Amino acid sequence: MHELGVVYRNIVRADRAAADQLAHHGSATVHEAMGRVGLLKPYLRPIYRGARISGTAVTVLLQPGDNWMMHVVAEQIRPGDIVVAAVTAECSDGYFGDLLATSFQARGARGLVIDAGVRDLRDLTEMQFPVWSKAISGKGTIKATLGSVNVPVVCAGMIVTPGDVIVADDDGVVVVPAARAAATAEAAAKREANEADKRAKLASGVLGLDMYAMREPLARAGLRYID
Amino acid sequence: MHELGVVYRNIVRADRAAADQLAHHGSATVHEAMGRVGLLKPYLRPIYRGARISGTAVTVLLQPGDNWMMHVVAEQIRPGDIVVAAVTAECSDGYFGDLLATSFQARGARGLVIDAGVRDLRDLTEMQFPVWSKAISGKGTIKATLGSVNVPVVCAGMIVTPGDVIVADDDGVVVVPAARAAATAEAAAKREANEADKRAKLASGVLGLDMYAMREPLARAGLRYID
Amino acid sequence: MHELGVVYRNIVRADRAAADQLAHHGSATVHEAMGRVGLLKPYLRPIYRGARISGTAVTVLLQPGDNWMMHVVAEQIRPGDIVVAAVTAECSDGYFGDLLATSFQARGARGLVIDAGVRDLRDLTEMQFPVWSKAISGKGTIKATLGSVNVPVVCAGMIVTPGDVIVADDDGVVVVPAARAAATAEAAAKREANEADKRAKLASGVLGLDMYAMREPLARAGLRYID
Amino acid sequence: MHELGVVYRNIVRADRAAADQLAHHGSATVHEAMGRVGLLKPYLRPIYRGARISGTAVTVLLQPGDNWMMHVVAEQIRPGDIVVAAVTAECSDGYFGDLLATSFQARGARGLVIDAGVRDLRDLTEMQFPVWSKAISGKGTIKATLGSVNVPVVCAGMIVTPGDVIVADDDGVVVVPAARAAATAEAAAKREANEADKRAKLASGVLGLDMYAMREPLARAGLRYID
Amino acid sequence: MHELGVVYRNIVRADRAAADQLAHHGSATVHEAMGRVGLLKPYLRPIYRGARISGTAVTVLLQPGDNWMMHVVAEQIRPGDIVVAAVTAECSDGYFGDLLATSFQARGARGLVIDAGVRDLRDLTEMQFPVWSKAISGKGTIKATLGSVNVPVVCAGMIVTPGDVIVADDDGVVVVPAARAAATAEAAAKREANEADKRAKLASGVLGLDMYAMREPLARAGLRYID
Amino acid sequence: MHELGVVYRNIVRADRAAADQLAHHGSATVHEAMGRVGLLKPYLRPIYRGARISGTAVTVLLQPGDNWMMHVVAEQIRPGDIVVAAVTAECSDGYFGDLLATSFQARGARGLVIDAGVRDLRDLTEMQFPVWSKAISGKGTIKATLGSVNVPVVCAGMIVTPGDVIVADDDGVVVVPAARAAATAEAAAKREANEADKRAKLASGVLGLDMYAMREPLARAGLRYID
Repeated sequence: MHELGVVYRNIVRADRAAADQLAHHGSATVHEAMGRVGLLKPYLRPIYRGARISGTAVTVLLQPGDNWMMHVVAEQIRPGDIVVAAVTAECSDGYFGDLLATSFQARGARGLVIDAGVRDLRDLTEMQFPVWSKAISGKGTIKATLGSVNVPVVCAGMIVTPGDVIVADDDGVVVVPAARAAATAEAAAKREANEADKRAKLASGVLGLDMYAMREPLARAGLRYID
Repeated sequence: MHELGVVYRNIVRADRAAADQLAHHGSATVHEAMGRVGLLKPYLRPIYRGARISGTAVTVLLQPGDNWMMHVVAEQIRPGDIVVAAVTAECSDGYFGDLLATSFQARGARGLVIDAGVRDLRDLTEMQFPVWSKAISGKGTIKATLGSVNVPVVCAGMIVTPGDVIVADDDGVVVVPAARAAATAEAAAKREANEADKRAKLASGVLGLDMYAMREPLARAGLRYID
Repeated sequence: MHELGVVYRNIVRADRAAADQLAHHGSATVHEAMGRVGLLKPYLRPIYRGARISGTAVTVLLQPGDNWMMHVVAEQIRPGDIVVAAVTAECSDGYFGDLLATSFQARGARGLVIDAGVRDLRDLTEMQFPVWSKAISGKGTIKATLGSVNVPVVCAGMIVTPGDVIVADDDGVVVVPAARAAATAEAAAKREANEADKRAKLASGVLGLDMYAMREPLARAGLRYID
Repeated sequence: MHELGVVYRNIVRADRAAADQLAHHGSATVHEAMGRVGLLKPYLRPIYRGARISGTAVTVLLQPGDNWMMHVVAEQIRPGDIVVAAVTAECSDGYFGDLLATSFQARGARGLVIDAGVRDLRDLTEMQFPVWSKAISGKGTIKATLGSVNVPVVCAGMIVTPGDVIVADDDGVVVVPAARAAATAEAAAKREANEADKRAKLASGVLGLDMYAMREPLARAGLRYID
Repeated sequence: MHELGVVYRNIVRADRAAADQLAHHGSATVHEAMGRVGLLKPYLRPIYRGARISGTAVTVLLQPGDNWMMHVVAEQIRPGDIVVAAVTAECSDGYFGDLLATSFQARGARGLVIDAGVRDLRDLTEMQFPVWSKAISGKGTIKATLGSVNVPVVCAGMIVTPGDVIVADDDGVVVVPAARAAATAEAAAKREANEADKRAKLASGVLGLDMYAMREPLARAGLRYID
Repeated sequence: MHELGVVYRNIVRADRAAADQLAHHGSATVHEAMGRVGLLKPYLRPIYRGARISGTAVTVLLQPGDNWMMHVVAEQIRPGDIVVAAVTAECSDGYFGDLLATSFQARGARGLVIDAGVRDLRDLTEMQFPVWSKAISGKGTIKATLGSVNVPVVCAGMIVTPGDVIVADDDGVVVVPAARAAATAEAAAKREANEADKRAKLASGVLGLDMYAMREPLARAGLRYID
C-alpha cells in the first residue's frame, strides 16, 4: 500500500561491494542466480544500448503527470545509488530530462529506472546517464501533488524496497533484496565461471543435448524422432 | 470530420523563419513554450536516432492499406515542408519506402510523420530522410481508393492543420499552429536561454529544491521527513 | 494443429541458390514479388539494426517458459538454416542467449526468428548472431515439457513449414514456400532491376503521378483539386 | 491545437430533427451513409448493452486525472445534447460517476462519450445513463487544472466540433458534422429502406453473389474455383 | 503460406457425429482432451454470452478492409458448418453484420469465428447468431480484392484447415483436426464423466491436495509450511 | 521480492466487521476514503456484472502456466477470505475453473482476484462465484513448479499483503491495508452519508459549480467565458 507525503531519510543500503559487483554479471545471470525471480517487466527498455550498471535503490513514488517528487528524491541520493521511480497510475509523460539528470549525476546517481516516460534523449545520451523507461515522451509535467520518497514501490510489476540492489543492462532490470545481495553476487560469480568452458565446447560443435546429458530425460519424456 | 477526394493546393504556411528556428529548441522545449500542449502521442517513434527537424506541414489522409495519395501529396510539397500522414482507420502497413522518399526529398521535404508503418529502413537511414512512424513493416499497399491532401487531419491523437509547424526529434513530434509559430519560437528561445545557468548550478551540486525554492511549498503541502 | 513430442529429421529444404539469393532483395521486395503475402507480423523486431539474411527454415515448437526444445533443434540445424521458433501460448520470456547462440552458430545457423523473448543482447550483438524477436527479456526458462521440431508452426501469425525460405532484415521477416523459392527469386530480381531507373527519375524531380500515369485514374475516381 | 481555459457558450447545434432521427439508423448505417467516415476508434465501448442514442455534441477538454471541467460543461448542456469528453493525454481514470450523471441527466444530456474511464457502473446502469468509454476504473480525479468547453476536440481519433451530431450504440460511436446532418439522415433512411428487401431475399437462401451480381466481377478479378 | 484467389469447393469435413458432440463438452475440456493444444488466442471473445457451438470449419481468407470473400464463402456453407475468417493483415473493421448473418444462417451456418471486427451487435444478438471476434466496430469494408475460400488459414494464432472441428463457447475457441475429432470426443466424454465425482468431493470440503494426492510431491519439490 | 516454495499458515487478518462492511461502500468510495490510493489496475475485470464483495486476502504466487499452488492455497482459506493470485511473469492462461471454484466456495471463499486468466465461465456464473481477472482463456495449466502462499504479492500493479481487505465490484478492485480497515470503513460511511443530499440537489438541477462553490476558484485559475 502506498503511503503519500513522506520522505524516509535513513534507509539501509545493501552491502556496497556486493551492489557494485553485480553489474559485472548482468541482469539475466543475476536473476538466474536468485532462482529466476526479481525481473521487472520487459516493457522497461534502456534509452540507449550498452549501459550496464548496478547500485542501491532510492525510490520515489510519483503522481501522474507530476514530477515534483523528483526534486525531493534528488536530495536523498548518495554516490552509488540508482533512482527507482513508480507512479500511482499509468502514465507515459516525460518526467525526467537533462536538468534533472545533471542534478542526479552531480549527486552520484548511476542511473534511473522509471515506470513512465523520459525526454531529452539526445542530452541524456551525450551525458551517458542511463535510463530504463516505459516510454519516451516530450510531454511535460507539473509540480502540484505530493508523492513519497524511500517507501517500498511497485515498479514495472515488482516490489522495490529502498536499499535493494538494482542491476540494469540491455536485457532489462532486476532487483536483488539487500539481504541477499552478497549471496547473490557469489552465486552469480560461480554461475559465470562455469560458462566459459561450456561456451568453448558449444563453439567446437558439441551439442547441448550431450553436454547437458539431455538425451535420456528427453526420451523418458517421450520424444520421438521420425526419419 | 474527414473530407475525402480533395486536394487543397493553396495553403497558408507558417512564417518560414519561425518554422525553421523551432528545430533548434527541440520538441520538448517547444511543447513547454506553448503551455504544455501540441504533442502527438508518444507511440510515434523516429526510425533512426539523431534527426531534429522543423518545417511546415502538408497533410495527407490515407485509406487503410492504400498509399495512392502519397503520390498526390508529393506534388504539393515545397522546400521546407514536412509531410504529415493520417489514416482513416488503424493500420500498420508499410506505406512509404525508398522510392517515395527519393521523390519527397527531391521536392524539398524535410521528413515524414506518419500514423502508420514504413519500410526500406536501411535505405531511408542511408538517405538520411527522417521518418516518425507508428510501426515498421514491409507490408505493401495498394492504389485503389481516394483520400485527401491538405485537409486538417488527426495524426497520433492531435489535429494538424496544413501550414502548421511540425517539430520532430528523438523525444517525439509537436505541432505548432501557424498563427503561433513566431510567438512560440520567441518563448522557446527565452526558455532555453534560462537553462544554461540552471544546468551549471545543478552540476555543481545545488539542489532543485533550493534553486526553485520548493522547500516551503512542499512543507505547506504537508511533506514530512522521517529519520 | 500442433503435434507435440516429435522431431522430424528429414525435411525438404528449398533450393539453396534461391534461398541464398533472396537476402539480396530484402523482405519488402520479396513480399511484393509473391503478391504481397508471407510477412510475419511487424511486432517481430531485429535485436540490432543492419542484418539482412535469408536461409532455409528449421522449426521448433516451444512450451511457454520452457526452452528444452531449443537444444533439440540445435542438432537438426544445417549450414544455411534459420531457426524459426513458435510457442504454444503467448510468452515473452528470454528463451535464447549467448550459449545457445554459440551452439547455433557452430552448427551453421544464420539467425533466429522467435515469437517470444531473447536475452544476452550484448553478446548476441558482438557475435553478430541476428535475432528477430517479440521481446527482450532476461527472464529465464526451464527444461521440463516437450514441444516439437520441424513441424509446421505459426510464428507471428504466419504458417512456416520446415524447409521454407526465411528472409529477414530491418523491415521484418517474410516466409517463402520452398516450392516458390526459385520463382520468387526471379520475380524479385526483375522487380529490383526495374527500380533503379525509377529512382533516378524521381530523384530528378519527376513525380510518381506522371511516371506511373496516375492522373487519369485519380480523376476518374473523382479526385478534385481546389485552389 | 487545443486551447485551454475557455468556455464557448454559444455554439451552433445541428438541426434537431436530423439529430434525433439518426439514432434510429444506428452508428454503422450512419457511417456508411456518410461514405464510410466519421467513426471513433473501436476501443470506445458502451458500459452496458442496448442503448442507442443520437444528439448534439457539447465538448469538454479535460486534463489527465482532473475532472474539474466536467462541472463546467454541465452548465452548457441543453436537452438533447451528448457530452463528448477528450483528455490532453492518455488517461484511464474514472472521471465520471453517479453524481455527475445525475447532474447531466437533470440538464437533459442523453449520454456521455469519453476518451478515458468512468465509474459507478451499477448506478449508471440503474439510471440508464449510457456512456461510451475507453476504460472502467474506480480511480478518482482531482479538480486543479483548467481545460476547455466547446472547443473542437480529438476524441478516440476523430475531430468532434461542438454542435456536431453524435450517434452511439452497441457498434460504437460516429460523429456527423452539423452541416451534413440532414443529408446524412436522408441517406441513412434510404439505405435502410433498401435493406428490408435484401434481408428477405438472403433469408430465403438467395446468395449475395447473385443478389449483388458479384460473380462476373469476381471472375474478372481472377477468382478460380477448384473441385 | 496463403494462396490468394482460389475457392476449394470439395473439402473433407470431420465426422458429423463427433463434430456435433464436441459442443457438449465445451472448449476448455476439448482442449484438455487433446493434450492442451488447439486453442485460438484469448483475444477472440463472443459478442454475447451463453452460446456454445461446435461444427465443421469452412475457412475464408480476407484482405484488410475488404469483405468481398464473405459473399463467396457463403455459397460454400453447408448445414453444421462454422465459418472461420482470417485476414492477411491486422484489421479491426466490421466485416460482418446482420445481412451476411441472415445469409449465413439461411445456409445452415452455426456461427462465425473472425480474427477481425463485426457490427450490428443488436441484430446478431436478436438473431442468436453467435460470433467470436477480435473487435466490435461499425467500420465498413469495401469489395475490391480477392482472398480465398477453404484454404488453410491462421486465425488468432492457430492453423485451421477446412473441415476441422471448431468448438466455441464463453471460454473461447478451439480447433480439432478432422482426423482426431472422434477420438477427441471420446476422450472429452471420459474426462467429463470423471468430474462429477470430483466436484461432489470438493463441494463436501475435501481438498484437492488430498483428492489428487499432491502433498507428497509438493513436499518432495521442497514446499515448506511456516506457522 | 518474491519468496518461492513457502506457505505461511498464520496470517493476521483485518478486523472482520470492517472487512465485511467495506463491500457496502464499493471500490470507488473506499479508494476515495483512503485518499485515492489502493486500486488495482483497471485491466482486471469481473467475469460477470453485479457482484460486490469484500473480505480478507489470502495470497498465492503462481508460476506461469502452472496452477499447482491453487490447490495449496485452498487449504489456507477461511470463511470470509478472498483469494488474490499473482503470477511471476505475464500469463493469460486459464488457471481456475469450476472444480477449483467448488473447492474454494466450500472452504468459504467469497471470490477470486487473479492477474491471469480463468475458464468455465458458464459454471462460475451459475455458481455465482465472482472472479476479477485479466483474461478469459480455456488454456489449461500444469502442476510442476512451486510458488508460495500468503507472501506479499504484486497483483495488477499493487502490493497485497495477506490479511489486507479486498473490495471488488463492477468498478474494479481495491486493497485496504489491514491496519487501516476500520478507519477506512468509517471514512467511507461518512463519505456516503454525505452523498444522498448532493444527489438530490443535482437531480433538481442545481449545478456542481454552485453546490461546490467552484465559480470563484475557476475564475481565479483564469477560466474565460466567451459568448
